[in-house]
Formats: sequence, C-alpha cells, structure tokens
Amino acid sequence: MKQIEYMNFRVMWLLRCSIAFVICLLLSSFTNLVYAESPLLTQKQRHVIDTFTTYNGATLKQVQVGWESYGQLNADKSNVILITHYFTGNSHAAGKYHPDNTNTGYWDSIIGPGKAIDTNQYFVISVDSLANLSVYDPNVITTGPATINPDTGMAYGLTFPVVTMRDFVNVQKSVLESLGIQQLHAVVGASMGSMQAIEWASAYPKWVNNIISIIGSVHSDAWTTTALEQWAIPIKLDPLWQQGNYTKDSRPMAGLTASLMFITQIALHPEYINQVGAELSHFALEDKPLNNILSDHAITAWLHDRAASRAAMMDPNHLLYLVRACQLFLTGHGQSLTEGLMNIDANVLFIPANNDLLLMPYHARDAYTQLRKLNAEKSSSHRIQYATLNGPLGHLNGILGINQHAQTISQFLARKD
Amino acid sequence: MKQIEYMNFRVMWLLRCSIAFVICLLLSSFTNLVYAESPLLTQKQRHVIDTFTTYNGATLKQVQVGWESYGQLNADKSNVILITHYFTGNSHAAGKYHPDNTNTGYWDSIIGPGKAIDTNQYFVISVDSLANLSVYDPNVITTGPATINPDTGMAYGLTFPVVTMRDFVNVQKSVLESLGIQQLHAVVGASMGSMQAIEWASAYPKWVNNIISIIGSVHSDAWTTTALEQWAIPIKLDPLWQQGNYTKDSRPMAGLTASLMFITQIALHPEYINQVGAELSHFALEDKPLNNILSDHAITAWLHDRAASRAAMMDPNHLLYLVRACQLFLTGHGQSLTEGLMNIDANVLFIPANNDLLLMPYHARDAYTQLRKLNAEKSSSHRIQYATLNGPLGHLNGILGINQHAQTISQFLARKD
Repeated sequence: MKQIEYMNFRVMWLLRCSIAFVICLLLSSFTNLVYAESPLLTQKQRHVIDTFTTYNGATLKQVQVGWESYGQLNADKSNVILITHYFTGNSHAAGKYHPDNTNTGYWDSIIGPGKAIDTNQYFVISVDSLANLSVYDPNVITTGPATINPDTGMAYGLTFPVVTMRDFVNVQKSVLESLGIQQLHAVVGASMGSMQAIEWASAYPKWVNNIISIIGSVHSDAWTTTALEQWAIPIKLDPLWQQGNYTKDSRPMAGLTASLMFITQIALHPEYINQVGAELSHFALEDKPLNNILSDHAITAWLHDRAASRAAMMDPNHLLYLVRACQLFLTGHGQSLTEGLMNIDANVLFIPANNDLLLMPYHARDAYTQLRKLNAEKSSSHRIQYATLNGPLGHLNGILGINQHAQTISQFLARKD
Repeated sequence: MKQIEYMNFRVMWLLRCSIAFVICLLLSSFTNLVYAESPLLTQKQRHVIDTFTTYNGATLKQVQVGWESYGQLNADKSNVILITHYFTGNSHAAGKYHPDNTNTGYWDSIIGPGKAIDTNQYFVISVDSLANLSVYDPNVITTGPATINPDTGMAYGLTFPVVTMRDFVNVQKSVLESLGIQQLHAVVGASMGSMQAIEWASAYPKWVNNIISIIGSVHSDAWTTTALEQWAIPIKLDPLWQQGNYTKDSRPMAGLTASLMFITQIALHPEYINQVGAELSHFALEDKPLNNILSDHAITAWLHDRAASRAAMMDPNHLLYLVRACQLFLTGHGQSLTEGLMNIDANVLFIPANNDLLLMPYHARDAYTQLRKLNAEKSSSHRIQYATLNGPLGHLNGILGINQHAQTISQFLARKD
C-alpha cells in the first residue's frame, strides 16, 4: 500500500508557493512568454512505502522519500521524463520553491518551459534517493541510516541494509506507479543519476524509451570502486564515528568535511582550482604553512570551509551508504556487464565531460562502443549517440555546464524513431 | 663541522657486502662485461651535520642522513650525477646491498655500468631526504619528527621545523662538499625528486650543468596543494595521531595506511588498477559488500593490504612533513615562479608521463614553454627538451617505465654544448 502526502511543515510558506504557482499557471494560459520570464515553481511532496524489500533481501517498513515535478502529466501519461539525481544532490532538479528563493534546482538551465527538457511538453519528475546525503535539508525527504527504525525507536545506523541503484530505481517506480504512470519517455541522470538511468533501462526495459547518461558510468570498475572508498575512509577514521553509532549533534563532522573536500576536488579539474588559487595569490610562498606544520595553505582553507558549510545538512553514515551503492553498481546487477547491457531496449545518449577526473570519459566511450556492438548483434534499430562536454569544471561540467548540449538533448528527446 | 661515518649496524652483513663489492671492482678492471652481468653493489653511508639552519630559520643539531653512490669519482670531481628521490623513496636508486638481495634500487634499469646513466663514466650519488618516510627501514638514515631531539631526549614530533625542498638540497650540498665536490654534471629526479633537481639549478646555478625532471613539477599549484592535503588528512583524523605525540608502537597506522592507499591510487592509472581488478573478478556483484556495509570489495582489500604492509616501515608525522615540503614548493622559493626559473643556467630535459594523474603532464609542458621563453629573452643557448613516457602505470611510469627513455637520457647527458 502506498500513499502520497503533502509535506506538513512550512504550511504557510507552501500556501504562498501554491498561490504563486496557480497565478503562474493562469498567466501561462495566455502566453508562453510569461512562463519563460516567471520562475518555474515546484513543491516537495512525500511518498510512503509501507513495506519495501531491498535488492539484497532486507525488509524496510515505512520508507519515505520526497519528490517533485515540473510540467503537466498528459491524459495518457505518456509524456513522463524521470530525472535521477547525483551523489550530493536531491530531487530539486529545477525551478524554485518560492519566487523569492535565490537558487534554483541544479539543472534549471535545461529543465523548464521552452528549455531542452521542455516542461510545456513533458511531465518532469524527480525523487530523493534512499540514504540521501542531505538528511538535514528541510527540502529533502529520505530514509536511511539516520532514520528512526520504527521497530526499535532508534536510528538504524549501520543496521540499515546496504542499498543499490536497483533499490533507488524501485523506489522511483513506486512513486511513478502511485501516479498511474507505467512508461517513461526518458530517464535522464548525471553521475550517480546516470547509473540509475541505465539501471532503469536494463531492469525494466518495457518502461523506458530513452536514456540520457551524463558524466556517467554503466558500472563501477575497479578504479572507481577504490576511488570511491577514499570518500568513506575519513568518516570511518573520525573517532566520533563510533561504528556509525552517533547522534545528530555528535556527528563525525571532521571526517564528513574531509570526505566532501575529496569529492569537490575530484569533481573539479586543475584548471578551475588553479583559477581559484590565482585569486588567493597561490603563486608565492605562504608564510603560515612555511612556519607551522598545522597551518593550511589558503587554497586548502578555501576547500575546507566550502566543505564544512555543506556538511552541516548532511549525515556521514548516509555518505557511506551512497559510496557503497555506487561501488556495487553494475548495470542489471547480474554476473556481467554484457548481460546487463543486453537487456536494454532504448535509445541512449552518452554525454561525458572531456576532462572528467571522477568518471573519466572512457566510461562513456566504452559503454557507447559496447552498446552499439550489442545492438548490431541483435539487429536493434535504437540510436546510440555520443557527445562531449567541454569547460574548466571537469566532472561538474555535467551539472553546471550542461546547457552547452541543450540542443543535443532536446533533439534526442524529440525524435520519434 | 661535518663528518662521515659508516653505518654501525649489521656489521657482519656490511662486511660481506664490502667483500663482494671489492671482488666486483677487481673483476671489473678486466672487463666491463663482468660488470654488466654481476649485480651493481653499493652500501649506505652516513653523513652528519652538527648544526643545520632550515630555510625558515630554525636550527637543528646533529642532522644525520644516509647516502649511497655508484661508479667512481674522477680526479677533478667533474663526473658527478646527483639522483634526488621521490616521496616514498630513499637514496637506494640502483644496485643491491648484497648479491643475494631480491630487489634493486628503484632506477636500476637506467643506472649502472653501460646503462643510460653509466656508472663506468659517472659518479652517481643519492641522499636520503630529511623527514624520510621510511624511518624504520634499516637502510634509511634520516632526521625528522621521529628523531630524538638531542636537547630534550624526546622525539621532535611536531616541534620539528617545517622543511622545504631547499633544505633537502642544502643537506645534499653538505654531503657533496664533504666529498670535495663543487659541481654537478647533472641532477636527475622523479616527482618530488624533480622538485629538488629544479631547485638545485635555481638556488645554485653555478653548480648545475644539466637537469632531468621526470614526472615532475616546478611548483605546487593550487590543485596539487589540495591534492597533497588528501594524504595528510587521514593521519590527522586517526585518534592515535594525538597531534603528533605518539610512540613507534602506538603510531596511527590506520591513518597512515589510508594515506598510502590514496598515494598508490593517484600514482597509478585506471588502466592498471582495472587490470588488477580483472584478476580479482571485479566484473560481477560481490556478495560480501552487498550484504555488509563494513565489508570491502576485493580490489579495496588489495589496495589496503598493499598499503598496510608498506606502512610498517614508515612514520606518519614524516609523511605530514613531506606533504608540506611538496605543498610549499616553488622553484627558487621566491615571490614568483618566473623569478625562480630565471635563475636557472642549465640544460633541462622534461619527461612527463602522458597519463599521469598526480603531476599531470601540463606541469612539464607549461614549465618547458616558460623556460624556453625565458631562455630566448636572455639569449641563452641552453637546451630545453621534452619527451613523454607511455604505459599503463600513470605517474609510476616515471619509476617503473623509465627505461623507454634510456636513450633520450644518455644522449642528453652526453652532449657537450
């Protein structure tokens, strides 16, 4: 049994949001121009699954996740595009919760009325992952190690089962089914989101017509598995971690902050960090680190402070579970990658970043080559396409530089073959 | 006042070494062929500096370092090549201590009789760095945080002053001067060793005729400074670190092991780690990490075990000091890189690895371009050359794959202009 509830906090704020949204909709019936100039508004909704069985066979009661949508579901529910989010992200993919918000969802440059993923045409939906990193973000609803286990009244901690991309997909499927949806025009995801997109197409091929894998991977190869481990290690070393048994107020924040420093660094590229360094005068010897082994260089302090401020809304155990979900990723969750890719019956567009240091472009290139070969073998007419992102941001070109492929994306989504 | 002493431990073993060495030398007087077939033998020697002033102005008493050499110093002491070692290395650059040793020095493929750095022609010498990582390797002699401070009778810990590449160079200069040497045909170093090579040429331009910078850098840019910080962080997070106050038996080994895992990963390349992964069947879902958040993937365990075994001979505080020395690196230690490079009055050969992820090839390429420009401006006739290493090992191609440029190196060293 599943049920959908509106978030019951910030009621007045949501009311204002809703009024603004309705006004927007009314105006938009006269002209699309108004749509383009007004902010796209959305609201977080809550989906509850009474009993959820994880891929590894564990049972979770009262799984709750947040979701949000942009655009209108059409009559035959055939215009759905699912957006699957990245490691540090959540379902806030586009728009604002309130016209006064400073920030928009992460892919606002390509999702909205008249944009690459056109909300005048598509019903775009996104769902918070299980074990979402930003547990303490009031706009995130998730279930993970920090959640109270209804059986014990205590946080799950490490008793929470290991979850996989298939579990994320199954939670999304439950949200979609609760809306009567049974097919997806497309699944579009960046990074960890790309893993969910490809897993959707492999696990539920009849559902999925198109996949867009941005800065993505179809499996965590050995290199990626050990690289991801680097994000888990500082948390486990922090004496406050206590094998996962900590409270919100005694979280291992030093370990979590270190982990976020590592994530930010590898998700960027020297070109960008060196631009920041130049602003901090990182071209002369610095006195403090020269004279005190415990003093940081200015660029290290910059990276640390950025990570520490982001860590405030996050949970360290959740990070460990997301690392594991990524490490375990293998399209189809079977005995081989070929087996998983063979199941796919969709058009696929790969968009890696040329200077990505986290999921290097060989991931997309190899998957592209392998999928084309498999399609040829089974005489499939599906399109397998490839395009490359440029820019100084490395992996993050897939989030912040995605607009350079707005046309590639809109054309891929529009083709009927 | 300086003095040289023979290591006073393992006396019998050294005696056997020395006898073997003498026999080798005698044989070599008849034919070079015998040299090429017999192992190159060497022995660690000890150099003591009674009072050493660090670059940042601190005073250290009784600084001791190890050094070793290969080949013979000629009459006018003009045939000296100094080898400066990398982060996890020491002065054992070539040869064996005893014919029965399984391993040779790290660059044995290019240092030896008839090899690229020909010990029939050159007197090749290398010196253990200050704060050398492998304090508990019986073949390393170093002074650093783990050393007993003669003033207190306690280990220095974090009271040891921050040291820089200039300090490493000054210690080497002291060793050379104790042998009556006042000029260097070449300084050749990989990675952190390349920093010392270029620092030599900038700080003491009259000494240095040729520089070979392998997988190197002429400064720690902002990216490199934060990347290096990743190696320090796990040690500082380990509860056993205690702000550097620990004993040999209570070292923060978990943090040190994590740091070495990070170093190994970034010093390699996906191509190699994925080869190892294939041997470990890293292409199917693994049951243990799927079912237990605390279980590692086989590839993670491989990387961990490799690091843990190396950590046994190392000191965590020393690692922090080496990280800092690298982070602070700026050729010439002045106010700008241009100022430091301008001082150089030597031929320079850069040999980066094409797929280096630690000191990416842009380091060598940019330095090459800048040095050529500066040389043109001052009408210098010095040669500035560039060659690239290939292979699956990333940064480590500079150590394990160096032999592919044996001829480039020997020709560079042989030219008289």
